Amino acid sequence: MIIDGKALASELEAETRRRVERLGRRPGLATIIVGDNPASMMYVRIKHSACDRVGIRSENARLPEGTSLEEIVGTIESLNKREDVSGVLLQLPLPRGLDPSRAMAAIDPTKDVDGFHPMNMGSLLAGAEGLVPCTPKGIIWALERLGVSLEGKDAVIVGHSNVVGKPLAAMMLNRNATVSVCHVFTRDLAAHTRNAEILVVAAGVPGLIRGDMVRPGAYVFDVGINRVGDRTVGDVEFDEVVKVAAAVTPVPGGVGPLTVSTLMSQTATAAEMQMKRNGR
Amino acid sequence: MIIDGKALASELEAETRRRVERLGRRPGLATIIVGDNPASMMYVRIKHSACDRVGIRSENARLPEGTSLEEIVGTIESLNKREDVSGVLLQLPLPRGLDPSRAMAAIDPTKDVDGFHPMNMGSLLAGAEGLVPCTPKGIIWALERLGVSLEGKDAVIVGHSNVVGKPLAAMMLNRNATVSVCHVFTRDLAAHTRNAEILVVAAGVPGLIRGDMVRPGAYVFDVGINRVGDRTVGDVEFDEVVKVAAAVTPVPGGVGPLTVSTLMSQTATAAEMQMKRNGR
Repeated sequence: MIIDGKALASELEAETRRRVERLGRRPGLATIIVGDNPASMMYVRIKHSACDRVGIRSENARLPEGTSLEEIVGTIESLNKREDVSGVLLQLPLPRGLDPSRAMAAIDPTKDVDGFHPMNMGSLLAGAEGLVPCTPKGIIWALERLGVSLEGKDAVIVGHSNVVGKPLAAMMLNRNATVSVCHVFTRDLAAHTRNAEILVVAAGVPGLIRGDMVRPGAYVFDVGINRVGDRTVGDVEFDEVVKVAAAVTPVPGGVGPLTVSTLMSQTATAAEMQMKRNGR
Repeated sequence: MIIDGKALASELEAETRRRVERLGRRPGLATIIVGDNPASMMYVRIKHSACDRVGIRSENARLPEGTSLEEIVGTIESLNKREDVSGVLLQLPLPRGLDPSRAMAAIDPTKDVDGFHPMNMGSLLAGAEGLVPCTPKGIIWALERLGVSLEGKDAVIVGHSNVVGKPLAAMMLNRNATVSVCHVFTRDLAAHTRNAEILVVAAGVPGLIRGDMVRPGAYVFDVGINRVGDRTVGDVEFDEVVKVAAAVTPVPGGVGPLTVSTLMSQTATAAEMQMKRNGR
């Protein structure tokens, strides 16, 4: 089976649209781009289009290359104060020399729709998930929607980044999966991946996972987005793995759309939390 | 080899005593006990004795059973404000019905010597370790002192609590170990533990880990403290495992003293951070 990320994302967006309507007030997502990385501009466009589909107002602050950390923090702080802004998203990467963690820590935790603020990461690790990183959350949501319970399952994550691997490990542990995290320092990757009933690959290495590295009947999520010549491919050798796995996400059209629709869902959650807090 | 936790703890305390002397000002540790759990009172006594050994001033606030969360938070906030208090430690467990996470979130993150504040847990998960939970940190420190590098090693943790399992997994990932976390929902525990070059057991189940579940040459840390009749035993069947492992911690005299001496070290770290912030 091929996991249709676009179809799942549409379901999640339909659900989010209904939540937004119930709010009785339009949530707003404010994105910030520093510099002119073309990939960043493309990702932000994709996010704004999703906002249009679910009824979230969107705006973008474009700051020039060479903007200081202090100026970025200033922009964030003015967005924090605005009642019509429910979510603040700083598009990464930042230009060289700027520490993204210091900038992200300036975002109001209740507007931190990307879930990277230390308060939100810490609540996640402690099992009290609020706003959390979107890619891991999208995968968890897809597993639930596919009827795959995590409890007691052997889950293997390849990649130990702050954006995917580590927060996903915490989320899977919170749901009582047995979780192994492998990465570039792992000596025998295949020995680990062959044990996985749920395999998530976020390594950024095209074709890293071959068919013989996958346990028959596994659910495989490919987070990789790699340009090879003029094609976009994942970290999974799709044609091989699709024959072994119970289900696998394609690239493109798998984890990517799930991530974007999770961002929409979290923006709605942030708006709901803010309205509740303000007693409205 | 038996890992002598007391001897390692003495080394760490000697190092901490030197740091305290260099500070030129006595750090202070304020503990809080709510109710009259005898184990809590014993643990706090042990911590205060360690304070005496390293030159840290200690004090305890004893709040009666039936104290409200608001009163606990009030006590914490007054300790947060005091310049002579470097570290604030709320001894767990709290009496039934009191949410420890809400109380711990009230501790000033720069005085959070137990490392449970969401800001500190989040920084840990993101790889920027500041003040972190003491038991995991003590194990990491012992591995370093024993000359065991984590990078590329297969590490297995049994137990996925907020206090040990999850923060230790994050710390080991930050040091590039391949990390697997097992727990009560894990189906084939032995299959995982047999693969461990470093095995940490924090399950609270006496004798859970038998000799045939341990990889020859492994380093084994037993976090369990269980009363069986009139004896205190760990989660590891020591007599069997000591024959297979390269090294194993006994119970008592293993991880316990490492945890307490790590608390001392973190109180010194907190005092250093506060003096630096205040420009002294």
